[in-house]
Amino acid sequence: MATTGKVIKCKAAVAWEPKKLLTIEEIEVAPPQAHEVRLKVVATGVCHSDYYILYEGGKEHGFPCVLGHEGAGIVESTGPGVTRFKPGDKVIPLFVSQCGECQLCLSDKTNQCVKNWTVDEKNMESKSRFTCKGKVIIQFMGTSTFSEYTVVREVALTKISDSAPLDKVCLLGCGISTGYGAAINTAKVQPGSTCAVFGLGAVGLAAVMGCQAAGASRIIAVDINKDKSSKAKEFGATDFVNPKDYKKPIQEVLMEMTDGGVDFSLECAGNVDVMRCALESTRRAWGVSVIVGWVDVKDVSTKPVDLICGRTWKGSYFGGWKSVQSVPKLVSDYMDKKIKVDEFITHTLPLEKVNEAFDLMITGKSIRTVLKM
Amino acid sequence: MATTGKVIKCKAAVAWEPKKLLTIEEIEVAPPQAHEVRLKVVATGVCHSDYYILYEGGKEHGFPCVLGHEGAGIVESTGPGVTRFKPGDKVIPLFVSQCGECQLCLSDKTNQCVKNWTVDEKNMESKSRFTCKGKVIIQFMGTSTFSEYTVVREVALTKISDSAPLDKVCLLGCGISTGYGAAINTAKVQPGSTCAVFGLGAVGLAAVMGCQAAGASRIIAVDINKDKSSKAKEFGATDFVNPKDYKKPIQEVLMEMTDGGVDFSLECAGNVDVMRCALESTRRAWGVSVIVGWVDVKDVSTKPVDLICGRTWKGSYFGGWKSVQSVPKLVSDYMDKKIKVDEFITHTLPLEKVNEAFDLMITGKSIRTVLKM
Ligand SMILES: NC(=O)c1ccc[n+]([C@@H]2O[C@H](COP(=O)([O-])OP(=O)(O)OC[C@H]3O[C@@H](n4cnc5c(N)ncnc54)[C@H](O)[C@@H]3O)[C@@H](O)[C@H]2O)c1
Ligand SMILES: NC(=O)c1ccc[n+]([C@@H]2O[C@H](COP(=O)([O-])OP(=O)(O)OC[C@H]3O[C@@H](n4cnc5c(N)ncnc54)[C@H](O)[C@@H]3O)[C@@H](O)[C@H]2O)c1
Ligand SMILES: [Zn+2]
Ligand SMILES: [Zn+2]
Ligand SMILES: [Zn+2]
Ligand SMILES: [Zn+2]
Repeated sequence: MATTGKVIKCKAAVAWEPKKLLTIEEIEVAPPQAHEVRLKVVATGVCHSDYYILYEGGKEHGFPCVLGHEGAGIVESTGPGVTRFKPGDKVIPLFVSQCGECQLCLSDKTNQCVKNWTVDEKNMESKSRFTCKGKVIIQFMGTSTFSEYTVVREVALTKISDSAPLDKVCLLGCGISTGYGAAINTAKVQPGSTCAVFGLGAVGLAAVMGCQAAGASRIIAVDINKDKSSKAKEFGATDFVNPKDYKKPIQEVLMEMTDGGVDFSLECAGNVDVMRCALESTRRAWGVSVIVGWVDVKDVSTKPVDLICGRTWKGSYFGGWKSVQSVPKLVSDYMDKKIKVDEFITHTLPLEKVNEAFDLMITGKSIRTVLKM
Repeated sequence: MATTGKVIKCKAAVAWEPKKLLTIEEIEVAPPQAHEVRLKVVATGVCHSDYYILYEGGKEHGFPCVLGHEGAGIVESTGPGVTRFKPGDKVIPLFVSQCGECQLCLSDKTNQCVKNWTVDEKNMESKSRFTCKGKVIIQFMGTSTFSEYTVVREVALTKISDSAPLDKVCLLGCGISTGYGAAINTAKVQPGSTCAVFGLGAVGLAAVMGCQAAGASRIIAVDINKDKSSKAKEFGATDFVNPKDYKKPIQEVLMEMTDGGVDFSLECAGNVDVMRCALESTRRAWGVSVIVGWVDVKDVSTKPVDLICGRTWKGSYFGGWKSVQSVPKLVSDYMDKKIKVDEFITHTLPLEKVNEAFDLMITGKSIRTVLKM
């Protein structure tokens, strides 16, 4: 391509500092280095984790940056040594890498990889291929899809079907895969079981979908936003519970509804109090609760006896999927109508309206907004 | 027997109120009612949980009571409807029942039983067959083995081999079975894995033994009492670590020793800070940590991301053993020299010296004291 080997100037939404609106800037995207790939981002979802880093995380480092980790695009050029990708390939960048060679990749007990971007938080600046106004702009999670072009490492990229609609399957880069996998891979929901999902954004609705796919016979969807009820039922929930409708703690409500607790619960709200509720809503003797919501500034707590009695507490990162190998299969599952994707998209906006996309999410008006470049 | 159907007067160590020494009293033990068995206690271990209730738990209710839940004895008489036991049978009373009929007993996912003594904490007084000085004395955990005679429900009693030495196998009624099972049944320690056990009382040493039986290749024993080192090695520990020897947090020490964390950890100290250390000492991608130590007055905490990365947090109650069916097998395993029991017994005392047994335990001088009646 004409741009190969050259710096590309393009538009990106830059987060200059925490708790400030993103601003659209012209940035410079350097050519990919060894084992890196530069891609044209076609579409990107807006996930609560992007919002979290900007407004809730309380981290001062990692800025200025370009957020976005739920994108899909087309390979523009490849760096030296890249063999699995060529210009024109449809791809999804991955915030969890799968190098295929490390101790973690070789184990079937985890989807973590020693080459994960975040493992090496010190070299954020040297790893970035972005500059703007003379400053290095950090690439959030190594993906930075809130940009017309981005550079990713080949271990954190996967090739998908040529016929996949990028403005839909971008959501498989995070939210949908995460919630769906958390139910199937991490909780390992069993047929005939009773489940509860707390928080009904894209992640939670995908968890509901996962519970249904796994054959759960009862799926209780829990959200403080009553407007999420009908959507939850569309995704397979059998009950909807709004904690605001009850005086007593929601774990007691669920205990009563289920005569002793659900078999599986998934926390997809990103709130440590909800995480505790989710655990304590499970059956004492064998309940399994999975934390999916992201919080790194607060501790989560429970009573030791609430585990000793027989419960299991886990967490899920990207739904437990080994990223490179699994995302193309999830794309196929969508194209074969085995999993929903379109139903998560309530809004489509241009990149320029990314702050509006945050607003829609945080006020509970959207499930997912897809930004088109 | 001459005593059948009559009230038996005998000696027992009574806990009149929290944080006070036990006193030896003459108590009245009523005959067993329907589906109950009265037994002569021959020997009983002294477990930290007895001490916990008296000195650490902070519960004002449940007193006066007779503690003790790690005993062995001989059936004296049986109440109406009892078919599985007859006078003269050697038995071990169980603080976890196994009725064999409830939803929990029928599930292979738990060793809990709906007939567990503690499920129904309100009827403590009406369930007791003990009186002393005109007062009902509560039967702690339904076992109350710090007494020459006790009455237990048949769902909480198991018959063991006629040739079993009661002054040894009593320890299979709690401590040894709990630690051993926590490693084997709850953590499900895998061959070749690296383990850490925090707290090296009888429960922790039995956990070490369980890790070894499961084929762990490295077992790091952790205790703030340096005198526990040699005993731990006798039970199979490959390393001993005393947190007092380090300035940095013990989870960091273990992380470094194991190049990223142990595969399995077991907390057998009964301290919420140690529970957190134990979790955080495990490998991020797949570590499994099991809480065995008993605390019900404090919360245990961690960072959500410390679970999201791939760890699992569990708890173990009586080592996950289905009590009635498993304890006789553990007794056989001991008699076939497949598991250690004698090595846990450092002291033997008469019932009258029960307070001394507590002292020996809490000052770290004993592993287990067996009280002989
Ligand atoms: N573990 C991972 O790999 C991973 C990946 C993606 C997202 N996440 C996290 O998952 C969470 C959900 O993401 P999302 O994009 O679906 O977010 P979202 O904002 O679209 O949805 C969150 C939902 O939770 C509900 N909620 C808030 N407080 C609640 C409460 N107290 N009780 C019940 N419901 C409550 C909100 O009303 C909303 O419907 C976030 O914390 C995000 O950071 C984690
Ligand atoms: N879950 C169950 O079913 C069950 C059953 C039996 C006992 N328990 C509990 O297991 C725990 C152990 O019981 P035990 O009888 O072996 O007790 P113990 O008092 O004999 O042993 C406890 C050990 O922990 C060590 N310890 C204390 N603080 C420590 C720290 N900060 N770091 C490392 N080690 C520390 C002590 O030095 C001691 O060696 C108790 O909490 C008891 O209540 C639970
Ligand atoms: Zn996300
Ligand atoms: Zn890898
Ligand atoms: Zn005990
Ligand atoms: Zn039962």
